[in-house]
Amino acid sequence: MMYNPAAPDGRNASLDSAVSPDGQPDAGTTYRVPPRCGVAVRVAAGRSIRVINTHGTQVCDFWAICDGAPHEFLSMAHCHTETGGIMPALGDVMVSNRRRPMLTITSDDSPGVHDRVIASCDWPRYQVLGCTEYHDNCADNFRMALMAIGEAAVHVPDPFNLWMNIPVSPQGRISWEAPVSSAGHSIVMRAETDIIAVMSACPQDLTPVNGDGLAPTELHFRIEG
Amino acid sequence: MMYNPAAPDGRNASLDSAVSPDGQPDAGTTYRVPPRCGVAVRVAAGRSIRVINTHGTQVCDFWAICDGAPHEFLSMAHCHTETGGIMPALGDVMVSNRRRPMLTITSDDSPGVHDRVIASCDWPRYQVLGCTEYHDNCADNFRMALMAIGEAAVHVPDPFNLWMNIPVSPQGRISWEAPVSSAGHSIVMRAETDIIAVMSACPQDLTPVNGDGLAPTELHFRIEG
Repeated sequence: MMYNPAAPDGRNASLDSAVSPDGQPDAGTTYRVPPRCGVAVRVAAGRSIRVINTHGTQVCDFWAICDGAPHEFLSMAHCHTETGGIMPALGDVMVSNRRRPMLTITSDDSPGVHDRVIASCDWPRYQVLGCTEYHDNCADNFRMALMAIGEAAVHVPDPFNLWMNIPVSPQGRISWEAPVSSAGHSIVMRAETDIIAVMSACPQDLTPVNGDGLAPTELHFRIEG
Repeated sequence: MMYNPAAPDGRNASLDSAVSPDGQPDAGTTYRVPPRCGVAVRVAAGRSIRVINTHGTQVCDFWAICDGAPHEFLSMAHCHTETGGIMPALGDVMVSNRRRPMLTITSDDSPGVHDRVIASCDWPRYQVLGCTEYHDNCADNFRMALMAIGEAAVHVPDPFNLWMNIPVSPQGRISWEAPVSSAGHSIVMRAETDIIAVMSACPQDLTPVNGDGLAPTELHFRIEG
């Protein structure tokens, strides 16, 4: 069966968690990303998005697509080239797959440990891990968050995994570790073009990426500036 | 203007370099990838593709898409998770963005230094590097190689950069170095599903990724098994 990038493999409350029917936010409102779900929001060029790790060890899979041009998106592999490394840093100008600036990291009060090298969890990943019944997953949350604001995924880009702690050894091996962030830590990214930002509160509860308690929880965010 | 992933930003001889009008190869024939160009070939499940570094220091941007399901493709970020690292190794079963096995590395007589973390060069990259007139690039070669066999790119996936030497420091910084391969080195990958393989003889002549001489050259390949 041909893979359709727009179609989720299952359903969850991401479909009912939109900030508004068209994804336009209210300035100053702090929005919630429910546990195991995704939310999309439009961010106009010049404004910023603050993502808050409410409880301290929750990973946020983060994506940005160009509003009105969905084939152009924040691309980790292009960021590696344009920022000269695989790890993000304060001040990084993160680019699209057309190398246009999309987001600048303007503030980060966490220790700065985020991941840019691994794919979102998805239903096939949970099947690899042994699940036989549908498991919430970040790829589907991306798809459903877009559906909830009237958009469709044309591709599931590789995410910017906020607070995800995936150390890379000198030999290039990776491991899945608990975040080193704390409750209330936040990261602020300024939109350099009109974007749709999508955030998923990662539902991974089989590896410690969301903390050693294996208990995925909520996140919050707001639009500033 | 909305980005269309199928449309090249310029043209070169990739459009006239197909192995056949429909991309079906002859077994045993050694095909050429002209310098600065791309070629696509269909590889049936169970057969293998041997890519040959004819002159020793030429990088090959390599992609695979599922034949008949173009939204599913060899995905570097998914390979990082499923192989447990960012560097490839002999025996790796490389997967698609649906985590299905696509290619197994069955032989590699080079020192095994290949890149899985950076994007293909593209026309925007050469503009970043200062070019004001069109420069051949791997992303366009991918698009044109598909056009030459009657297919259209729905997305330009992140490539598997054969022989590309992009060391990653313990701090996650990357650099662009000359390949450590030698003339005649080859890598063999067995198709685990029906694929279209696309190879681009990288036209990068502004950094030493294709050797300190900054002189991009040809590659060869054949279908085996």
